[in-house]
Amino acid sequence: MVERGGDPARELGALTFAEAGQAHTVGITGAPGAGKSTLNSALMDVVRGRDQRLAMLAVDPSSPFTGGAILGDRVRMQDHVTDDGVYIRSMATRGHLGGLSLATPQAVRVLDALGWPWVVIETVGVGQVEVEIAGAADTTVVVVNPRWGDAVQANKAGLMEIADIFVINKADRPGADDTRRDIQQMLELSTLGSWYPPIVPTVGVDGTGVEELWDHVLAHREHLAESGELEERRRQRVEVEFAEILHRSIEARVAVLADTPVNVELRGRLATREIDPYAAVDELLRRADGSLS
Amino acid sequence: MVERGGDPARELGALTFAEAGQAHTVGITGAPGAGKSTLNSALMDVVRGRDQRLAMLAVDPSSPFTGGAILGDRVRMQDHVTDDGVYIRSMATRGHLGGLSLATPQAVRVLDALGWPWVVIETVGVGQVEVEIAGAADTTVVVVNPRWGDAVQANKAGLMEIADIFVINKADRPGADDTRRDIQQMLELSTLGSWYPPIVPTVGVDGTGVEELWDHVLAHREHLAESGELEERRRQRVEVEFAEILHRSIEARVAVLADTPVNVELRGRLATREIDPYAAVDELLRRADGSLS
Repeated sequence: MVERGGDPARELGALTFAEAGQAHTVGITGAPGAGKSTLNSALMDVVRGRDQRLAMLAVDPSSPFTGGAILGDRVRMQDHVTDDGVYIRSMATRGHLGGLSLATPQAVRVLDALGWPWVVIETVGVGQVEVEIAGAADTTVVVVNPRWGDAVQANKAGLMEIADIFVINKADRPGADDTRRDIQQMLELSTLGSWYPPIVPTVGVDGTGVEELWDHVLAHREHLAESGELEERRRQRVEVEFAEILHRSIEARVAVLADTPVNVELRGRLATREIDPYAAVDELLRRADGSLS
Repeated sequence: MVERGGDPARELGALTFAEAGQAHTVGITGAPGAGKSTLNSALMDVVRGRDQRLAMLAVDPSSPFTGGAILGDRVRMQDHVTDDGVYIRSMATRGHLGGLSLATPQAVRVLDALGWPWVVIETVGVGQVEVEIAGAADTTVVVVNPRWGDAVQANKAGLMEIADIFVINKADRPGADDTRRDIQQMLELSTLGSWYPPIVPTVGVDGTGVEELWDHVLAHREHLAESGELEERRRQRVEVEFAEILHRSIEARVAVLADTPVNVELRGRLATREIDPYAAVDELLRRADGSLS
């Protein structure tokens, strides 16, 4: 319903907004091929092993239009398909105002209101939008590989800004230590708050380091709660969402106005120079105020 | 008054809009260093030599804030300073809604309503906005130089789209013939209407080719009038301006809202989850309609 957008999505959003705010959201982002889904499958094993329930949303605009199908191509995920303590969905939007960047927080809110304690959002850290979606989580995990330099060169600064935890996945490959030093150097040049992002080496295929990764997520959640940063982050996040919805609503309103008979009439009067463009805009907005709000 | 913007500019715009529509506007655009002002100075000699009056607006956002001073740095222009048949102004905007892209058509309208038969708009063909301003004229002249390739590589397609006349200025330098062939080739690949853009070699410093350039401008004006394209272009241009004003007006309206107690109140209710972001946007826009229209 959220993915389809429109009035039902808004109604659902309104119903769940008041109830949400209990779940802890974890954004996991990284370049294509960084091994995010293998890592996430291993993470599910760990979280389920600790008897916690977990929902996972995969947001990948570049993948084929799987539109809500479970991630059947991700073989290891199939272990979890029949597990009631796990929810997995590949997000796609059909008509949602604002696309994935506005649909994702609404989807998280539904899962949150339904009582899922952990919501993991997986995105491909390529485009600006996908990085923003992951960075809008309570805890953001950035996944890189040994010799990451070339793969994410363009976006390094952006990833530095959002990372609460760094994961060097495929850490059994050569170059893992160099990559750790590289990240440490970049962190030393960054302006950090009271949280110093840990760097966690993992091997997704055999689960090495994944228990430690989850321990760091728990530590970060505790840090956010104790420092008061959790409330501040969530408040800011709602404001960003508000501004984005406002922007999109205005765009939609202009598009609707373009199709109205009033507009056709005004454009005719413009063509005959009976009215000037500024006066025409004023009149369009004045007449629209009554009919569109 | 137009450059300062605000209510006086709008009033002036309303007064002049009904009277305007007689002047023929010529946009002249090209990369920095293409010799546009030398060429324009030579063009003034030609037009004045034919006993025509001519107004010239220089739109150059990258130049120092000359704010309405005559173009004193353009030495040859000084020949025309005491000539009543010439009006020269360097456009700058201080507070005009929408900046140069909305101030320029209003300035043209004032000159038009005052009876100037020719209005030349000179812009630097670098940014998208400046190319759009020049391309919004009745006749658009694109000025290039021999070996133009490197200078305008990125923008070639955009220039092809708007050019009614090509000028190869500094045509006494090596490479002019190659440049002509290059342009011809690109034109053959373009979708053209019933007007085939002529390619005119000029030497601005000694006036070579500038009589021919003005003849092509006159021919293009005649073509526009006979084909009915002039009315169609002007109609489209007003519609583009209308859409731009509409967009800017709504943006301005929302910017005003950001500072209102209504917005502060709504953000407070958002923070306490009393209202969801979509409902908050709806309420903000609804209240804006009542208070600002």
